[in-house]
Amino acid sequence: MTPDAFEGLGISLPRLRARLDALAEIGAIDGGGSARLALTDEDRRGRDLVVSWMRDLSLRIDVDEMGNVVGTWPADRTDAPVMTGSHIDTVATGGRFDGTLGVLAGLEVLETLIRAGVELAHPVAVAFFTDEEGSRFAPDMLGSLVYAGGMPLEDGLAVRAIDGALLGEELLRIGYAGPQPCPARPPRAFVELHIEQGPVLEGEQVTIGVVTGVQGISWTELTITGQSNHAGTTPMSMRHDAGYAAAEVASFARRLAAEIGPPQVATVGRIELHPNLVNVVAARATLTVDLRNTDEELVAESERRLFEFCDELTEREGVSITRRSLARFAPVDFDEHVVALVEEVARARGLSTMRLLPSVRGISHNPAELTADADLEAGANVLLHVLLRLAADAR
Amino acid sequence: MTPDAFEGLGISLPRLRARLDALAEIGAIDGGGSARLALTDEDRRGRDLVVSWMRDLSLRIDVDEMGNVVGTWPADRTDAPVMTGSHIDTVATGGRFDGTLGVLAGLEVLETLIRAGVELAHPVAVAFFTDEEGSRFAPDMLGSLVYAGGMPLEDGLAVRAIDGALLGEELLRIGYAGPQPCPARPPRAFVELHIEQGPVLEGEQVTIGVVTGVQGISWTELTITGQSNHAGTTPMSMRHDAGYAAAEVASFARRLAAEIGPPQVATVGRIELHPNLVNVVAARATLTVDLRNTDEELVAESERRLFEFCDELTEREGVSITRRSLARFAPVDFDEHVVALVEEVARARGLSTMRLLPSVRGISHNPAELTADADLEAGANVLLHVLLRLAADAR
Repeated sequence: MTPDAFEGLGISLPRLRARLDALAEIGAIDGGGSARLALTDEDRRGRDLVVSWMRDLSLRIDVDEMGNVVGTWPADRTDAPVMTGSHIDTVATGGRFDGTLGVLAGLEVLETLIRAGVELAHPVAVAFFTDEEGSRFAPDMLGSLVYAGGMPLEDGLAVRAIDGALLGEELLRIGYAGPQPCPARPPRAFVELHIEQGPVLEGEQVTIGVVTGVQGISWTELTITGQSNHAGTTPMSMRHDAGYAAAEVASFARRLAAEIGPPQVATVGRIELHPNLVNVVAARATLTVDLRNTDEELVAESERRLFEFCDELTEREGVSITRRSLARFAPVDFDEHVVALVEEVARARGLSTMRLLPSVRGISHNPAELTADADLEAGANVLLHVLLRLAADAR
Repeated sequence: MTPDAFEGLGISLPRLRARLDALAEIGAIDGGGSARLALTDEDRRGRDLVVSWMRDLSLRIDVDEMGNVVGTWPADRTDAPVMTGSHIDTVATGGRFDGTLGVLAGLEVLETLIRAGVELAHPVAVAFFTDEEGSRFAPDMLGSLVYAGGMPLEDGLAVRAIDGALLGEELLRIGYAGPQPCPARPPRAFVELHIEQGPVLEGEQVTIGVVTGVQGISWTELTITGQSNHAGTTPMSMRHDAGYAAAEVASFARRLAAEIGPPQVATVGRIELHPNLVNVVAARATLTVDLRNTDEELVAESERRLFEFCDELTEREGVSITRRSLARFAPVDFDEHVVALVEEVARARGLSTMRLLPSVRGISHNPAELTADADLEAGANVLLHVLLRLAADAR
């Protein structure tokens, strides 16, 4: 039985849409998006729904110690699967496709394969990983990080939420502290379908972006301590203004990205001032700097230049600056065989493709995110045939 | 009975210190400061204590419709008094002298005059005004603003706190919604003793700063709306980053003050981002810009240039910026007769003086604020003799 025999096989768009709509109802927010922060009651209800669908397909459902959930077909196969999946947690103002599409398209692919009675050399699995967004528990991509051995399990379970809760305790509370070991044995291959939601594909009128790797990421939290003073009576020359210093860092981040050039990005997404009053020069500022590049040397250079700028600011403004690394990952190049296969499958289906450097986690984090039905269908069908080829490959 | 007869009269430093220490205990915070936000339970307890001291001196105690409290001596005199006073509310991280010294030095002057059996042409009064800090109810100087007729009483009572409470309801709750009409009849003269807490006097080794006016003030709240996007995948050139735009405003404020030159000051003391996450380009920023100058034309020019910069930013960053005026006061020059009298009295006592342009409300807003005993005593004695001269003046 070769994949050619299933050349005409296709997923069911109405079935996929129905599941997308049903999951989006859980934690629904204005504008058509969802709010299911990791390990909240909304996340639990979302997980329960997806698990019920896995059960309907008679998959073997494995929940691991980090709460990652894997559904495998055929249920009795324990050899390394060809795996797909993503996440169903969202940011506070999440859209309905981010992550969710990767999980539910995977489920749809499995349902399509099962209904067609396909027999394959390797099992196929669909997974959703815990806390991929990082909005409640930092850093993001936490479940898959521990799954892949990038962080010890104990450290993952000990991460504290912005609301003070412990990740391990929240897993127990929602009933997703599973028995399977984490990190897990590596799958045979992993392919994820994700909306781009960056502007490139739409701008270029291309249907399928073929992602060739993930960016390197550096997250640094800076705490700037200056001196609280009255905004009316302290001459400008005598100020040690933590708020101004924070603003200078945010302006510098923009210049830094421009000087290094694309694909370097730099973002100050979080700023908090203390006491944060109209008529008081801020005594303290906490802010984060997110630096990314596909080239590890440039990630390191951007960090170095940020830290040099902080040293200059310390000198110039008479403030002190402490820094704390919140996350640091080197860039990763994806397996060229799988990248080429995605391209080949898409082109064979008459779909335009484009290799993309940016992260597969290209997300707008906005309830307004929208993917056209035709693109949903095209993407899920490419996923179907890529998984089919990978799982049929008896090598 | 002429003031000359009381040339040797002086206040009691131990009595003044004891009252300062007792009041600082109410809402005491680490570092020796106090937190008595306007019309909270702490403010009520502070008011009750000061009123009990007024009662001990048999002053006539008048509480007005804005909760301003005036103690007058002799108690039966209803003609226009020579008045002193300040405020006893604090910022969240207030010092123990800011405002409080002006009220308690006034009380100490009255006790000194009463004990000495002085008889004067005019009554003398000490007042404390509601919500002078503006930390809970904006704008600041609210009680004295309504007292002086600068804002209708109804508007003052309708101001809503940052915690949602209504000023008028909070006055009722703490028992300080008084029967006296506000605005009040103007006093004959008003003199306030206040710590400087700017760095000028200490730098110049001068004991008594003679303040000649108050700065003009412009407070503007800016709300910047951009677009929420993923920090990893949105190219820098396609961003509409409200956080970056806010940082640019804060950097501009510093340049603006430098270009206009002293005594212009410009402060961005409050910045809030939304959603305020490390990996999300901010969709919205709210920030305040505090602009001050002693020259009304320059206050207006600084506002004009700020608004022009906002227009440029709107264009350049593809964001929208709305603005709301939180407070706007023109500069005021103090009565030259009273200014000269303060100078004369201080010099006659062998104290160094210096005319200051900045606001009399020169406050560090910091628990660490410190005034040496000798300076407290010198300041209170200057207040004593200035009030004595003003109240003895039968014109």
